[in-house]
Amino acid sequence: MPEYKAPLRDMRFLIDNVFDFHGHYAALGATDASPDMVSAILEEGAKFCENVLSPLNRSGDEEGCHFDNGVVTTPKGFKEAFAQYVEGGWHGVAADPAYGGQGLPLSLGLVLSEMIGSSNTSWGMYPGLTHGAMSAIHAHGTEEQKTTYLNKLTAGEWTGTMCLTEAHCGTDLGLIKTRAVPQADGSYAVTGSKIFISAGEHDMSANIIHLVLAKLPDAPAGTKGISLFIVPKFHADTGARNAVHCGSIEHKMGIKASATCVLNFDGAKGFLIGEANKGLNCMFTMMNHARLGTGMQGLCNGEASFQGAIKYANDRLQMRSLTGAKAPDKAADPIIVHPDVRRMLLTMKAFNEGNRALTYFTAQLLDTAHLSSDAAQRQEAEDLLAFLTPICKAFMTETGLEVTNHGMQVFGGHGFIREWGMEQLVRDCRIAPIYEGTNGIQALDLLGRKVLGSQGKLLRGFTRIVHKFCAANAEHPQLMAHVEQLNQLNQQWGELTLKVGMAAMKNPDEVGAAAVDYLMYSGYIILAYLWLRMAIAAQAQVDDAEFAKAKLATCDFYFKRLLPRTATHRAAVEAGSECLMSLPAEAFALL
Amino acid sequence: MPEYKAPLRDMRFLIDNVFDFHGHYAALGATDASPDMVSAILEEGAKFCENVLSPLNRSGDEEGCHFDNGVVTTPKGFKEAFAQYVEGGWHGVAADPAYGGQGLPLSLGLVLSEMIGSSNTSWGMYPGLTHGAMSAIHAHGTEEQKTTYLNKLTAGEWTGTMCLTEAHCGTDLGLIKTRAVPQADGSYAVTGSKIFISAGEHDMSANIIHLVLAKLPDAPAGTKGISLFIVPKFHADTGARNAVHCGSIEHKMGIKASATCVLNFDGAKGFLIGEANKGLNCMFTMMNHARLGTGMQGLCNGEASFQGAIKYANDRLQMRSLTGAKAPDKAADPIIVHPDVRRMLLTMKAFNEGNRALTYFTAQLLDTAHLSSDAAQRQEAEDLLAFLTPICKAFMTETGLEVTNHGMQVFGGHGFIREWGMEQLVRDCRIAPIYEGTNGIQALDLLGRKVLGSQGKLLRGFTRIVHKFCAANAEHPQLMAHVEQLNQLNQQWGELTLKVGMAAMKNPDEVGAAAVDYLMYSGYIILAYLWLRMAIAAQAQVDDAEFAKAKLATCDFYFKRLLPRTATHRAAVEAGSECLMSLPAEAFALL
Repeated sequence: MPEYKAPLRDMRFLIDNVFDFHGHYAALGATDASPDMVSAILEEGAKFCENVLSPLNRSGDEEGCHFDNGVVTTPKGFKEAFAQYVEGGWHGVAADPAYGGQGLPLSLGLVLSEMIGSSNTSWGMYPGLTHGAMSAIHAHGTEEQKTTYLNKLTAGEWTGTMCLTEAHCGTDLGLIKTRAVPQADGSYAVTGSKIFISAGEHDMSANIIHLVLAKLPDAPAGTKGISLFIVPKFHADTGARNAVHCGSIEHKMGIKASATCVLNFDGAKGFLIGEANKGLNCMFTMMNHARLGTGMQGLCNGEASFQGAIKYANDRLQMRSLTGAKAPDKAADPIIVHPDVRRMLLTMKAFNEGNRALTYFTAQLLDTAHLSSDAAQRQEAEDLLAFLTPICKAFMTETGLEVTNHGMQVFGGHGFIREWGMEQLVRDCRIAPIYEGTNGIQALDLLGRKVLGSQGKLLRGFTRIVHKFCAANAEHPQLMAHVEQLNQLNQQWGELTLKVGMAAMKNPDEVGAAAVDYLMYSGYIILAYLWLRMAIAAQAQVDDAEFAKAKLATCDFYFKRLLPRTATHRAAVEAGSECLMSLPAEAFALL
Repeated sequence: MPEYKAPLRDMRFLIDNVFDFHGHYAALGATDASPDMVSAILEEGAKFCENVLSPLNRSGDEEGCHFDNGVVTTPKGFKEAFAQYVEGGWHGVAADPAYGGQGLPLSLGLVLSEMIGSSNTSWGMYPGLTHGAMSAIHAHGTEEQKTTYLNKLTAGEWTGTMCLTEAHCGTDLGLIKTRAVPQADGSYAVTGSKIFISAGEHDMSANIIHLVLAKLPDAPAGTKGISLFIVPKFHADTGARNAVHCGSIEHKMGIKASATCVLNFDGAKGFLIGEANKGLNCMFTMMNHARLGTGMQGLCNGEASFQGAIKYANDRLQMRSLTGAKAPDKAADPIIVHPDVRRMLLTMKAFNEGNRALTYFTAQLLDTAHLSSDAAQRQEAEDLLAFLTPICKAFMTETGLEVTNHGMQVFGGHGFIREWGMEQLVRDCRIAPIYEGTNGIQALDLLGRKVLGSQGKLLRGFTRIVHKFCAANAEHPQLMAHVEQLNQLNQQWGELTLKVGMAAMKNPDEVGAAAVDYLMYSGYIILAYLWLRMAIAAQAQVDDAEFAKAKLATCDFYFKRLLPRTATHRAAVEAGSECLMSLPAEAFALL
């Protein structure tokens, strides 16, 4: 397994030089997030992830979780690492101080999450799901519910889950069958079976608080009849065991140390949270945060893979450079001399650093949406978030998967061998384009709901930023050609959107036909904008010329070798729906 | 696991309507390969693969191979399936009748191989490696060696391996350390350690014949000092156990039922095969066949994945069509109504059927190179093979991996669960872009050795075919637009090659920088040519209008949604090497 080292240099560059986190925090009144605090989080977080979580990553994959008669045992060391995490105060970093949290901005929590996910994706699922449950309770719970559950969850004594999926429905939650019947005491008897519940059962905490989507007896059909319930494993007041049990855990391709559970609710006692029949809305309020977190998994696995690949490419001797021996004293040259190995490494580097910039950019918007005292500023941030979130989720996981596959390929045959750890990163990453809404669903959300649903307003909110940026940097001595390329793509983006919008008015299938390519097209343009911001910021700082040179070279690579992919995605968008819809379903496979 | 059904309709279409296998066999005097024989191979082969191999695929993956003190046990049923395969006479289908084979053309052996690889890739490795060893002995062995080994190998009593890789070298075989010291009796004492030896040890045959690359004591340095040796596990004459032992087997991402062995040679008795110091040349004579076989793995896993995905897409109910309910009597529509699901399915279908056409096209060239009595015709076939082989290997495995990933994605969360079998196909396929020469190496072989090395002659051998085809079909009523698109790309291909060639004369790194994108670009154009041939042939046959419509629709999809990827690959080729080479190795990861 590549030994994880937190990329603090790059993180600090984004925090200090590109996005001015300190000014951002000061403007939002987040005074606790002082430069010293940010430094402490970075350095101590890195130590924890490098020394505690990273060593458990491969053993966790090999060992997996064990299920025995309703009891789930996590891999060796996982429980102890969680105890250390809680003891170190990490669990409540971004949680509300009213319930025992440290109250630091969400963006700082995400900076920490990147390090956790890079060092051990499976382990990160346990606190990750808990944070999701905490957000839901915080946003929609009564004061009593908050007091009862949030203190324990923040303290890490208890953990949480999100129970949405059932065997017959994942995307189409309107079909769920789990029922909640009102009881005389004001509680509900929840009955049904949920699948794919991450952290649904395990041995890391004393209690597990499930947030469960279910239907009331008189609920309207479809998604408008879904309510959200708190169903604790053990009741908070009496400590009595509730009628929710883990029926089995899944055998999966990856994230094997994350327990993915079937949960059976047999008249379990639950408590309505939020309004009846508004359960999906409650979920959606946390969606931006959760989806950005899932998108980051592409970055996390990609970063870990890059660290392995760059080391191997410098160590492994194989063949001579085509331009003559570079290490004549050795039996062969290190493979990093070969252009195609560099193509893979630079692709990895350009996506990782670009995706990290996208994460930080979006994380700042999350802060603003949560903390700003200015309603207009909050709304602007919300609009940008609505637009960027599906792109973060889908683009970063698609490209992250590509990155981990390159990392494996750099290792040649050794990449396929488990001991090296490179193939685990591909397997772990492979779930990210699927869960938390498949990338196909993200693309429909982006193009259908967000872009066309706002008559282009949400897109223009972003293209305006790019337009201003291009205008301001049109004469940049080194980068003007790239700025102009971005400027043209930014215009083309609007035109392409208009074209799809017109077609979609005649035929709604045009949206589905264009969606994934439209999302990827958009992602490449957004990363181009961020790469230019990085290149300019790198030049502006004078402390580290080598770092600036690396940023410029990677930016150049991105514009020349990756950004041209927009042409293919645009062509696919323009191809329209007819070539997808004309074939009858029964003619796909004629035997 | 998707239940495999051999796609006989599509295979027959290629054999009968597109490539006229019967005329081809008749012209080569391969009279045994009669239409009845071809039918029998298809039908009986399909039965064996569907009924015997396919049911062992998932259990083989779950169980894997077991190693205990030098002994390797294959998964339950593997040994028995091999016995049935041998008993059915399948093992010698394309082998020389002089040594007990049936002497059918290689192309027919590959048709069978597709069915084997699709139903159980891991199992197929055992006979696959044996066929490789048989070819080497047949091409380079003395008559005594042939008599001694080929009869037993053809009969399937013994199996074979190819021992090339060592821990410190895979691509760079010039670095191998295994030594062969001449003995008084004319044999050699072989000492060294080989890794990644597929079928290196197992329980399926009475004996294993290893073909081993090693260096003689006085050998020149590098690849010009490598010789090839036959090293039997048990000696053919005495039956004595030889000093070659399996030290361990690898734990891998996929093809887990294929034993990947470390083989330790401790002064094992071996016999030189072919000329001293010409071992690599011996290997290269079999390369076209072996690499086409490896390329087919992309097709095989892709076909299996498509069969799973199409069934699931018709069965799974989720959401309503954007254009209104298509199955109003059901809770939701089958997901095949959604344009984005169709995009994934059609991508799978277009690559699979295109790759199958590429396989058959290339397999006919193999036949001609082996069997034609006309030297000029043989040379022409050899030239086309030299050009197409690296493309078959790399393009079909890259696109096959994409296909298996789409297949998994169609299943949503269920795709990540092992029980469904879709993720196994991704894992099994993931080795194909790596072994038998990584795709990066294939690309260097194509652009450097084949295309530029022949001053473009090998490329022109193919573009001439395309040019003639386009001229002949320029007025085709339904397809003229696609024919014109192909014609333009065919010209652009030559121009792009010239551009790279000019740049490479100044800087050899330009070849490495362009190679992979050049290969993929070439592959897309070749598949466009083959898709048009299929579309035209499908229209020309009048028996099955539904089949013809499906081919035309898929061709249209290919041209509109996949062929535009050439634009991106071209841009990457034109971007040149500077953006890859400017960053110093030590600046890739600054911490």
